[in-house]
Amino acid sequence: MRNIKLTISYDGTLYKGWQSQKNGRTVQQEIEKAILKIFGHHHTLYGASRTDSGVHAKGQTANFKVSAVFPVSKISDALNAVLPADILIKRSEEVPLDFHSRFDAKSKLYRYSIVNSRTRDPFSDRYVWRVPYPLDAGLMDIEAGFLAGTHDFKCFQASDKKERSSIRNITMARVRKTGRQLRVDIEGDGFLYNMVRNIAGTLVDIGRGYLPPGSMAKILRSKDRKKAGPTAPARGLFLLKVRY
Amino acid sequence: MRNIKLTISYDGTLYKGWQSQKNGRTVQQEIEKAILKIFGHHHTLYGASRTDSGVHAKGQTANFKVSAVFPVSKISDALNAVLPADILIKRSEEVPLDFHSRFDAKSKLYRYSIVNSRTRDPFSDRYVWRVPYPLDAGLMDIEAGFLAGTHDFKCFQASDKKERSSIRNITMARVRKTGRQLRVDIEGDGFLYNMVRNIAGTLVDIGRGYLPPGSMAKILRSKDRKKAGPTAPARGLFLLKVRY
Repeated sequence: MRNIKLTISYDGTLYKGWQSQKNGRTVQQEIEKAILKIFGHHHTLYGASRTDSGVHAKGQTANFKVSAVFPVSKISDALNAVLPADILIKRSEEVPLDFHSRFDAKSKLYRYSIVNSRTRDPFSDRYVWRVPYPLDAGLMDIEAGFLAGTHDFKCFQASDKKERSSIRNITMARVRKTGRQLRVDIEGDGFLYNMVRNIAGTLVDIGRGYLPPGSMAKILRSKDRKKAGPTAPARGLFLLKVRY
Repeated sequence: MRNIKLTISYDGTLYKGWQSQKNGRTVQQEIEKAILKIFGHHHTLYGASRTDSGVHAKGQTANFKVSAVFPVSKISDALNAVLPADILIKRSEEVPLDFHSRFDAKSKLYRYSIVNSRTRDPFSDRYVWRVPYPLDAGLMDIEAGFLAGTHDFKCFQASDKKERSSIRNITMARVRKTGRQLRVDIEGDGFLYNMVRNIAGTLVDIGRGYLPPGSMAKILRSKDRKKAGPTAPARGLFLLKVRY
């Protein structure tokens, strides 16, 4: 028995997220179907992050166990040959048998992309949130800084999802501007459901002046979802990297 | 009565080309539907180029006539508000009543994008032809040079489409490499059906060494479609500009 770790990119536009479900195509199901085709047996694939419907990835990780004899580095090529064009296995490698992509992850890095423009772009709108109001990227970066550290992130917890604890540790949160694109990068040991999208929505409300400077610290202290901004659309969110 | 010229971008992936047809969505139909919503009447839209199924545009032009009083420069905003996200009206302007977007076009500039890579990219494969063989971009550029001038392009004419004359004038044809991307730019006064994609397929056959140097001039002289390379896929082709 060998434990295989995959590093995966996907365009999430046409998927109902990562995790297998009864209704609708998911990324996990597509890769499990590909594994079945290549190895002749079903093997459950464990993903590091259960990315939501429409969310993309450039560095999702997952693992599965097989007994087949097969050069491990070639598994990526074999899977890519049968996978749809919007999913790419970037790398396949053997890891210790006790490795688990989700439980062993030390941190995850997400990027939320915003384009500050009144004009849509038919070629990139699948991957960004287009915001027509002028945004103060410098202020957004300062406010994002208040997220770093160990906090109770209850204010960014989806109201219908109640994880056991809403305390998480964020190691980095920043906003960088390149041309008309703003990138919100957030890294942490774990995230509540919709947390990154709720943070992005709140940062945009601050950047456009709808919420005053100093709001991020206040919202965090309030532990009140209603005080924070809206949930930003899924299409701007990328899982960039999972660190072990 | 006023004559309105539109400059249009679109992602052609989900469309059966520009021209209205009975089966399947087309870009012309979508914009005519938007015009109907805004002006309350059907107005026929005349496009400069009948781009094929799956072909994209960054500078398609079209015109239609209306009697409505409406600030012309605002027509683009009004149409964009009701158009799907993969079509963008970049500009609307008033032109003389006798202007016709197709018959008055002096030249059209097309770009065909090739990515020279063995690895697919889930985020850009909608817009390029991915070719896994090594390609000699310098040789492709030299061979493309033979296309410039007035020639009988019968060798690049789709075998099931017989335009009255297959003589066209190409003013520019070149291949440029940026990183792993090769761009075939071709400008001319008119193009046969599938001509640019047939030229791109032939240039790739030369660039990968399947056809020897000197092939382009020979293929042109042969006037034989069978001597030329395959038709490159639609997704790599962009109509960049129509000049008047």
